Amino acid sequence: MRFCVIGAGSGGRAFAAYIASKGYSISLYNRSFTRISDIIKKGGIEASGELTGFLPLDCITQDIELALKDSNVIMVVTPASAHKHIAKMIAPYLTEGHIIILNPGRTFGSIEFIKIIEKYRGNIPIFVGETQTLLFTSRQLSENKVNIIKIKDSVGFSCFPDKYNDLVYEIIKDIFPQLEPIDDYFEITLNNIGMLLHPTISLFNAGLMDFGKKFKFYKEGTTPRVCLVLEMIEMELNEIFEKLGLKQLKYHKWAEKSYGVKAETIYEAIQKVEPYQNINAPTQLITRYFTEDVPTGLVPISSLGKFLGVPTPTIDSVIHLASILCGIDFMKEGRIIEKLQIQNLLKERLYVEDIAIGTLFLEQKDESSKKLKEYNNFFQYN
Amino acid sequence: MRFCVIGAGSGGRAFAAYIASKGYSISLYNRSFTRISDIIKKGGIEASGELTGFLPLDCITQDIELALKDSNVIMVVTPASAHKHIAKMIAPYLTEGHIIILNPGRTFGSIEFIKIIEKYRGNIPIFVGETQTLLFTSRQLSENKVNIIKIKDSVGFSCFPDKYNDLVYEIIKDIFPQLEPIDDYFEITLNNIGMLLHPTISLFNAGLMDFGKKFKFYKEGTTPRVCLVLEMIEMELNEIFEKLGLKQLKYHKWAEKSYGVKAETIYEAIQKVEPYQNINAPTQLITRYFTEDVPTGLVPISSLGKFLGVPTPTIDSVIHLASILCGIDFMKEGRIIEKLQIQNLLKERLYVEDIAIGTLFLEQKDESSKKLKEYNNFFQYN
Repeated sequence: MRFCVIGAGSGGRAFAAYIASKGYSISLYNRSFTRISDIIKKGGIEASGELTGFLPLDCITQDIELALKDSNVIMVVTPASAHKHIAKMIAPYLTEGHIIILNPGRTFGSIEFIKIIEKYRGNIPIFVGETQTLLFTSRQLSENKVNIIKIKDSVGFSCFPDKYNDLVYEIIKDIFPQLEPIDDYFEITLNNIGMLLHPTISLFNAGLMDFGKKFKFYKEGTTPRVCLVLEMIEMELNEIFEKLGLKQLKYHKWAEKSYGVKAETIYEAIQKVEPYQNINAPTQLITRYFTEDVPTGLVPISSLGKFLGVPTPTIDSVIHLASILCGIDFMKEGRIIEKLQIQNLLKERLYVEDIAIGTLFLEQKDESSKKLKEYNNFFQYN
Repeated sequence: MRFCVIGAGSGGRAFAAYIASKGYSISLYNRSFTRISDIIKKGGIEASGELTGFLPLDCITQDIELALKDSNVIMVVTPASAHKHIAKMIAPYLTEGHIIILNPGRTFGSIEFIKIIEKYRGNIPIFVGETQTLLFTSRQLSENKVNIIKIKDSVGFSCFPDKYNDLVYEIIKDIFPQLEPIDDYFEITLNNIGMLLHPTISLFNAGLMDFGKKFKFYKEGTTPRVCLVLEMIEMELNEIFEKLGLKQLKYHKWAEKSYGVKAETIYEAIQKVEPYQNINAPTQLITRYFTEDVPTGLVPISSLGKFLGVPTPTIDSVIHLASILCGIDFMKEGRIIEKLQIQNLLKERLYVEDIAIGTLFLEQKDESSKKLKEYNNFFQYN
């Protein structure tokens, strides 16, 4: 079995080194030469941390055709905002049975990826899935190095459609025992933590980020009142999860799972996550915190809310102001459900939910969403 | 003629000293004792700057009935968010012919004031007007002092309804020759500069203001990209002005008039206004920048936009996020036109505009608003 890793940042390097360490044949692709020039020179990656030593790679290249040649599994390890471009780029070279995993997918990553491949190649039998978060906590070092701080114990993944989960899992489970197949694709793809924190905190510190002032992004820029807005966004998300019969992974629970902190609120959790405390704010305004997390996170959620009849005024406000700040029409650029063409899929889901769960339970769900309704009434002015 | 000044901050003290210097009888009211205790002790105000010397006052008190006794003209010199409370408080003591001037009114100040007086006293023949900005540039000093840096040459004022302008002007013109009656009340009350800058700049620096970090509000916190949002708000405002056949005072023009700076954009103007450069950001988040300027500025504009069919998505986003940050439902607390009951007045205005100006000109106005429409289409996602 041959792997191809797309993206040679810290995540891509970690994947390439890990796969090579398992003795598999592997090619590494990167768009720009600077990221791979030293890896080409040395013929492989120098890993430190949980994985140590020099790992040779079979092929390191800027030529996507060459990178994909004879590959069976493609690991996409780039910002989610690059997925569209990558799908179009690799479409001509895909063959029957190819497995593609987005690390991570953000919201509706696999669906967007499949739609673009269909557009350029028609309906070919390939399998596309995504992880909820990156398998590695890693930092890119200079030259051909990578520091793998942590290989996570368990990361959820799912294909779209999720009926292919078992098939794909059988193929990759020996190499990636940490990947845990989740039955419901929506549960993986909607529980996107990046979109909750990054854009909103950036918005409330936009002035000084744009000015280039030095400050601590989480420790100084993320205060109790800023977290009120994050809590509000989480409530809007919760309403959507309830409508779809899905379990929301709340931030403080995610922080407990990922960092072992015990907290009741978002503010408390953020203050307790040790690795956050020394993170400086970006010294420029336009970063992945907006350009990745708005179009591949808040935008699909907002369009989903509109489809389901769930108001998302706070999410919409963040999208609108971020669009002006960045000069990018994120609602146009981003993953809206009309473009993903999942209206029928959503209707089916709602219908199945209705039959399976029954009216009584739906009423209880309405009950549980009262809190958001009260909050919304409080802020109602449309 | 006897004056009553309500509010003993820097503005109120400047008014009291100025009126006393003209030889008129005057009382000064303040809600809290700390602001007036030293003035009571000394029996008057110690002025410096454009007005110099000790100015004795007839009455300095926390008792509103006493303050208003035998008064003819009432100068309200408080944050606009206090107008509602003051109107209710003084209503029982008003007598026929009383003149009340709000310094300044912010948006629809006089209308709100009259409605509340009507509620508590019915229809009594009094005259309520407002200025566009404060007549004095002043700073409150310790004890009984005030520093009057500048008495402005010309400040627009208008009564509501504006048919009373001449009548009121005749009475006050000898004491306040700087006040310039403006024919159209709407032109005074809608050209509210404070609401343009304060809430939005505060929003984009909310994190560090809430954290209490020291930085320069305008010099560091108001960057080119923050000013893109201010330009967008100015465009939404412009559409409303055009619909009502009114001339908008653009910020860079206002800065030229007020500070003599020549600039083409909001960012350029703000960077050139010398007194702005050393202003520190408030070291707390909840200030008049939100609690005054949102409910008495952005909120009435948003509700006016809805009435006129002009979309104000940027203004609405700022209001919504500021509401969550402050824990105040500003759309409920603020001056919305339904509460002010000016729907018929607005319909009449639009009707008169239509007849007087003709359909052709209205079409030209539509033409001139194309720019905003294009911008809005760019950001359209509703």
